[in-house]
Amino acid sequence: MQSLLSTFTRVLLLMPLAVLCYPLLSHAELRQFEMTVEELELDIAPGFKAKVWAYNGQVPGPLIHVKEGDDVEITMINNTTTNHTIHWHGVYQTNSWQSDGVPGISQLGTEPGESHTYRFKADKPGSLWYHCHVNVPEHVGLRGMWGPFIVEPKDPLPIEQEVTKEAIIMFSSWSSEVADKFGEGGHPTEKHDYYSMNGKSFPMTQPLRVKEGDVVRFRLFGAGSETAFHLHGHDMLVTHKDGLPLDSPYWADVIDIPMGARLDAIVRMDNPGLWLNHDHIDTHVSNNGKTPGGPVMIVEYEGIEKPDFYVWKDKDTHYEPDFYMSESMAKGFGLHNISAYKANEIKKERKKNKKKKKKKQKKDKE
Amino acid sequence: MQSLLSTFTRVLLLMPLAVLCYPLLSHAELRQFEMTVEELELDIAPGFKAKVWAYNGQVPGPLIHVKEGDDVEITMINNTTTNHTIHWHGVYQTNSWQSDGVPGISQLGTEPGESHTYRFKADKPGSLWYHCHVNVPEHVGLRGMWGPFIVEPKDPLPIEQEVTKEAIIMFSSWSSEVADKFGEGGHPTEKHDYYSMNGKSFPMTQPLRVKEGDVVRFRLFGAGSETAFHLHGHDMLVTHKDGLPLDSPYWADVIDIPMGARLDAIVRMDNPGLWLNHDHIDTHVSNNGKTPGGPVMIVEYEGIEKPDFYVWKDKDTHYEPDFYMSESMAKGFGLHNISAYKANEIKKERKKNKKKKKKKQKKDKE
Amino acid sequence: MQSLLSTFTRVLLLMPLAVLCYPLLSHAELRQFEMTVEELELDIAPGFKAKVWAYNGQVPGPLIHVKEGDDVEITMINNTTTNHTIHWHGVYQTNSWQSDGVPGISQLGTEPGESHTYRFKADKPGSLWYHCHVNVPEHVGLRGMWGPFIVEPKDPLPIEQEVTKEAIIMFSSWSSEVADKFGEGGHPTEKHDYYSMNGKSFPMTQPLRVKEGDVVRFRLFGAGSETAFHLHGHDMLVTHKDGLPLDSPYWADVIDIPMGARLDAIVRMDNPGLWLNHDHIDTHVSNNGKTPGGPVMIVEYEGIEKPDFYVWKDKDTHYEPDFYMSESMAKGFGLHNISAYKANEIKKERKKNKKKKKKKQKKDKE
Repeated sequence: MQSLLSTFTRVLLLMPLAVLCYPLLSHAELRQFEMTVEELELDIAPGFKAKVWAYNGQVPGPLIHVKEGDDVEITMINNTTTNHTIHWHGVYQTNSWQSDGVPGISQLGTEPGESHTYRFKADKPGSLWYHCHVNVPEHVGLRGMWGPFIVEPKDPLPIEQEVTKEAIIMFSSWSSEVADKFGEGGHPTEKHDYYSMNGKSFPMTQPLRVKEGDVVRFRLFGAGSETAFHLHGHDMLVTHKDGLPLDSPYWADVIDIPMGARLDAIVRMDNPGLWLNHDHIDTHVSNNGKTPGGPVMIVEYEGIEKPDFYVWKDKDTHYEPDFYMSESMAKGFGLHNISAYKANEIKKERKKNKKKKKKKQKKDKE
Repeated sequence: MQSLLSTFTRVLLLMPLAVLCYPLLSHAELRQFEMTVEELELDIAPGFKAKVWAYNGQVPGPLIHVKEGDDVEITMINNTTTNHTIHWHGVYQTNSWQSDGVPGISQLGTEPGESHTYRFKADKPGSLWYHCHVNVPEHVGLRGMWGPFIVEPKDPLPIEQEVTKEAIIMFSSWSSEVADKFGEGGHPTEKHDYYSMNGKSFPMTQPLRVKEGDVVRFRLFGAGSETAFHLHGHDMLVTHKDGLPLDSPYWADVIDIPMGARLDAIVRMDNPGLWLNHDHIDTHVSNNGKTPGGPVMIVEYEGIEKPDFYVWKDKDTHYEPDFYMSESMAKGFGLHNISAYKANEIKKERKKNKKKKKKKQKKDKE
Repeated sequence: MQSLLSTFTRVLLLMPLAVLCYPLLSHAELRQFEMTVEELELDIAPGFKAKVWAYNGQVPGPLIHVKEGDDVEITMINNTTTNHTIHWHGVYQTNSWQSDGVPGISQLGTEPGESHTYRFKADKPGSLWYHCHVNVPEHVGLRGMWGPFIVEPKDPLPIEQEVTKEAIIMFSSWSSEVADKFGEGGHPTEKHDYYSMNGKSFPMTQPLRVKEGDVVRFRLFGAGSETAFHLHGHDMLVTHKDGLPLDSPYWADVIDIPMGARLDAIVRMDNPGLWLNHDHIDTHVSNNGKTPGGPVMIVEYEGIEKPDFYVWKDKDTHYEPDFYMSESMAKGFGLHNISAYKANEIKKERKKNKKKKKKKQKKDKE
């Protein structure tokens, strides 16, 4: 009896301590971020720009990297001239459906000059993403309103733990016809004539530089376009679908990524060389008729000498090592802006030229 | 010896009884149905209708629900002005290839005013479907000639037995250019400008009303269009492909459904809220430029209060509880007509207006 | 001690013999081939031809069939008026990246009149393929520059060993607008109005003739077009993706094949009849508006009497038994030209007519 009371007392005394310590033990943190939305212009392909609504002034939006179980609080500040929201695609919103970011359902669209705060637990692990949910065909399909939301799992698979380099690629498309006209675009029959990876079309994409022995994890996002992702010289092991591990991973040399979906593929870099990596949907690798263009890049192994005719022989002058977010993914948890994705101020001279052009057109009609 | 004879005699006497009882024991039944085809007009989106050839006057066609092993006999009566057939997609037609419904192979097209009877065993279980096989690009692609054929398996999986609510969704697309012109449409380069689930584009789709604890089985059909099916707030477990169980089910938050294919996904309704559910192919969620449109609906949990700004706050005035065939699937085996899918008589006044319009056009040319 | 030395001596004496015998034991061979590229015209659908650059004068290119582990050496001789290469899609190019066939990376494009030799080990087994990598949107997307490269595995699966008949099908599309204009085509928004299997659109495709008990292995290639492959009357077991076995094969009646990808499906021919087999993407089964067209064929079981109305009742007069490479796959290792795929000389009279046409157009403008 005495020892039982004693044990009981000890448990009673320890309980508050356990309650206090649990968050530390489970490592869940509260992570608070802010993101603006800016009206800017993005350089996509040689001779082609598009007006965008850019989270933190960049397309893709900043990398948000948290841990499974974290509580997340993100405030969006709308510095543009139209409404926007943020939908956290893949996040369960367990008991937080009002943070789901859908205008007319969980909130009203956030107006110009206003802000909105989202609060949710990151209880689903993996490659998730965020995007606007106002007028999706234009805002997501044509204006770059998307970015990656990576949730590190509590219990990673053995193969995930072998990864030495991350490469995040978000695929999208663009329409030259509406590129400079905010408020237009998204019609079911419109023509898309530029395709990109992380907002750039070849040759404005970047090499992925690896060394023999690297284990690369590609996180592939159908952000605004479907793609048939093909890597030369290697098999890819598809391990995750929409953030969660596949019970039955499979080998592929072409991975089809539907719009909205994410697939993770792990590749062992065991075959030194220079390897093309591209969308195999033929009409996508053309910039409005000029080929090669579109979602094309090259995996460059360290130590391989580039031939004289190598298409990217002079790439070092404008090499962006963080173009696939490899460096930012290694920075740890947080919100990471990436300079390679920055969009530019819309030039006023061009607006003046437009006014001139409209005046002239008006005169011609008279 | 005596006891052996005795046993033998017993077996001999019982055999006819076994033969008589076998159908009852195996539960295989002969199910006989009739379906007409009608020339009608379908309301699809605000301000958009299309002429359709509708099985039993509705699009989708009636739900046909039978049991694995049943013998099925269906007579199609053609009340339209052009030939049709019915192909039973997924049905093996074991020893009954002449009931496969393909004109020029298993039959001639059934002419206006004529009828044709199909006889086969439903020996493949799962989410199958039926559709016309005359001039598929127009009849199936643009005129709504399809419906679900659900075959209940003899040995359902444990997870199938947990299902409390069925939701059947058939995706298709439409072309405003040929919508009112029977006999046109189906060209490889034509423009499709409306997309739908069960023949309706948002906001003319319906909520899926669930309660916490429900286990919903989505049966998804690429009837006349591909779709990237996305549900907010939940993971979906894809369990069946083209009617048969997957050895390796997988989790997804976006499910790509190719044309002709069916995927079944089971979702536990464990996250009360109001959840958007839509095609993630951006250009599909636009009704000829007006967004949101297309294959979009909302999963509404019981007990969740709708906000004042809720887009479907007034939906009760025209709520259709059977829009996803949830009620009809619970009715048991048979052929079920669904009033929410009814198409309308083609209005004669519009035909008069067409004649006037053609006369005027003729005068203008002179 | 004495017996130890004796064993040691024996091993020492046998080693050179083992080294000499190893290649024989492992069966790896050096296989040397030559392929030309020819400027020709391909008959695709009734009333439709397209100018092609044809490997060995045929589309698809010749079947190349080797064994896992073989060393391969292929020389391409360019008999056309523009540059070409050959990329060996799926081949690892282990330590041979310079044979990967990508202009601007592993080589310069091979010029008219020149040749180029590729050397690599066929160390990845399965359904691989080869295609040009110069200006892919035109050369691969519209000019037929692709063919199958089948690598027999050292350790085939039990189910592979049951196969009695191979059927290789390569899907592609064509554009009538640029069909006769070398150097044009491949624009992201261009219209494709013809679709084909092995370079032919129905009715110019061929039946697949089988007998009950056959086990058919379909090797399906998204060579220049996506397809949703549907076979009536049978389930298909999808066993391989991009050449490698799936840990978790799955049953399907519609198989989606993304561009660039390959899927192998094994089908037991256990249901005698006449069975349609076609792309379920509705707009693909139309030849520029005429339907049925496109990637459509019929599986014909031996012993099934063709009805009077049978669409291919007179097919025997131009039956091509090797249209799905069934016969060539049974010929063993090597490079196999297939007469059914031969393209034709571009007719000079048509060129004369073109000159006349252009002269007339010029006059009309004046």
